[in-house]
Amino acid sequence: MQKIGILGGGQLGRMLLQAAANYPVETFAMENDSECPAAHLCHHFTKGDIRDFNAVYAFGKNLDAITVEIENVNVEALEKLEAEGVRTFPKPGVLKIIKNKILQKQYYQQHEIPTAEFVVTQNLQELDSRKNFLPAVHKLGEGGYDGRGVQILETIEDVERGFDKPSVLEKLIKIHKEIAQIVAINEKGDTALYPPVETLFDPALNLLDYQLCPADLKDGTLWKMEAIALTVVRHFNSPGIFAIEMFTDKTGEVYVNETAPRVHNSGHHTIEAHYSSQFDMLWRIMLGLPLGNTGMILPSIMVNILGADGYDGQVKYEGLEEVMQMENAFVHLYGKKYTRPGRKMGHVTVINKEKQDLLFKSKRIKRTLIAKC
Amino acid sequence: MQKIGILGGGQLGRMLLQAAANYPVETFAMENDSECPAAHLCHHFTKGDIRDFNAVYAFGKNLDAITVEIENVNVEALEKLEAEGVRTFPKPGVLKIIKNKILQKQYYQQHEIPTAEFVVTQNLQELDSRKNFLPAVHKLGEGGYDGRGVQILETIEDVERGFDKPSVLEKLIKIHKEIAQIVAINEKGDTALYPPVETLFDPALNLLDYQLCPADLKDGTLWKMEAIALTVVRHFNSPGIFAIEMFTDKTGEVYVNETAPRVHNSGHHTIEAHYSSQFDMLWRIMLGLPLGNTGMILPSIMVNILGADGYDGQVKYEGLEEVMQMENAFVHLYGKKYTRPGRKMGHVTVINKEKQDLLFKSKRIKRTLIAKC
Repeated sequence: MQKIGILGGGQLGRMLLQAAANYPVETFAMENDSECPAAHLCHHFTKGDIRDFNAVYAFGKNLDAITVEIENVNVEALEKLEAEGVRTFPKPGVLKIIKNKILQKQYYQQHEIPTAEFVVTQNLQELDSRKNFLPAVHKLGEGGYDGRGVQILETIEDVERGFDKPSVLEKLIKIHKEIAQIVAINEKGDTALYPPVETLFDPALNLLDYQLCPADLKDGTLWKMEAIALTVVRHFNSPGIFAIEMFTDKTGEVYVNETAPRVHNSGHHTIEAHYSSQFDMLWRIMLGLPLGNTGMILPSIMVNILGADGYDGQVKYEGLEEVMQMENAFVHLYGKKYTRPGRKMGHVTVINKEKQDLLFKSKRIKRTLIAKC
Repeated sequence: MQKIGILGGGQLGRMLLQAAANYPVETFAMENDSECPAAHLCHHFTKGDIRDFNAVYAFGKNLDAITVEIENVNVEALEKLEAEGVRTFPKPGVLKIIKNKILQKQYYQQHEIPTAEFVVTQNLQELDSRKNFLPAVHKLGEGGYDGRGVQILETIEDVERGFDKPSVLEKLIKIHKEIAQIVAINEKGDTALYPPVETLFDPALNLLDYQLCPADLKDGTLWKMEAIALTVVRHFNSPGIFAIEMFTDKTGEVYVNETAPRVHNSGHHTIEAHYSSQFDMLWRIMLGLPLGNTGMILPSIMVNILGADGYDGQVKYEGLEEVMQMENAFVHLYGKKYTRPGRKMGHVTVINKEKQDLLFKSKRIKRTLIAKC
């Protein structure tokens, strides 16, 4: 049996390990918290810091292959492991580009991939000299995660909220649709595309929490997005799963926002709604097995269950019983003991051929299933 | 989080634990082999003998609930645990009846559940005096598992192959169809029925290895079987998952063959082909959550992957790549290191609305995916 390790032990690692149990593979995971969502689902768990060179190298050196469920890992250790013959998904060079928003934007530019116009600012002084570029989004080059490290600068007064470190300043796009496209690519370079998903905006809740699959796109836009996503992936020359986040504007122009070189939140629905889920697919790629069928069994919608505002402590779920009574709703709670505002505690996928049913149920789920304490 | 334990660590435990990862539950498992298929997928694994009173009692005494993936467990320990407030799925009294084929047949008789006519034989001498009952099946009362403890006695010459211990001698039925019906029942007594599956016989291979869902039954037969299966379950007065194996003859008569009070091989297809799988359903029942939707997403066929004849040793799969290239085929290999003839090494489920595709692919899978060494 191959020995394969995962850096990171959150919900993505958990769902990867759930899928691993269909195959003969010896699994390893590393995370700093031995009660993390994935800790108990692998053959061998290591408590350790995934950002530490020695920890990552020691974890990986006897493995056949290694993957990540988060970008924020020690890339130098992965490079050494790769040089010593451990297959890495994605390759460390990809993580280097993705982790730095400046390099990531330059990658798009270099490969003529459409992305919002941008300039690099080294400090606040340089930002100040780029006021003509507003309205814009200021993104910290390194170290920004989960919404931190991003500021929308609408007017000149906002500039003081910018970053005094190397950052990207990119023109604000009037977003018509936010689309995520997941691409699988194996070591031979064969690719498989999942149907794109569309992030839906709930005006009442002011949240971007529903992901509808398939996205409602004109054929021309769909084909353009697929071609762009494939271009993003191919130039990386790396096997793995990639989630490419794109925007369209009202004119139908497409812009790549960012890429995650790993299994991704926007692919949760593939567990139930597609023949081969993104998690199943990554195991196929890592084990050298044929790519799976990305086809859709039924249309779906996915709702993230986030920690409710004002609650910080041991989690209790309100409304779980009501949601679990809904037909065709698949509940995934990640087994996190503690909730805090906005923390990803779980998700629910609904599958049905009727889009109206998906929209209706997902809104009801959002209102009903609450992570409190 | 509730603490829930599983006695047994085979493939059924493995698939139960895969499903558990959708819910907040702290999982425990016990088995004598710390490399068994389920060992690495629970929070807490105990190496121990599930047939031993002290081991089972020690394992269970701090749990909220306990279930089994095999009948052959220490029932006395479960009775003590139940008396002390550990919820058991099924109740120990059910296991007592099921484990003894004489008591099981008497249970059907007592509740007027149709089953093949039978007599009890205490020893070979008594069997000899029942020659007029042939052709018949002789089933050892206790201790028979996985086909052992069953002899078909066609003629008087066969009688010497019978058992010299308390056994059931039942009239041989001319089986037209072999059907399994899975029933879920919660602590309130609410029930949910999965569509029945039909075991298909492959004349070329002389194997009973395909399970087609839904079974091809006339409405009248279907309703009769559902009513009978519900009667079997209701009189047990126990929550859990029950698999009721029934035969029909050419006249449409239905006979209950036997019942398993647990998740069962005949429900493997529910993982992909039904909204709530048998494994998901058992967690719902144990966690006091609403019953799931037993409805079918698509028709399915399930093929067991058994250890090939003539191979005994460290397993290598032949044909895995070819099978994993098939669209809509879901491979489950149980991670067992060693194969031996007839050992359950995995299964493959195919889902499709076209029955012909199911039959074609399942036969191809059977011929292609071989557990050798």
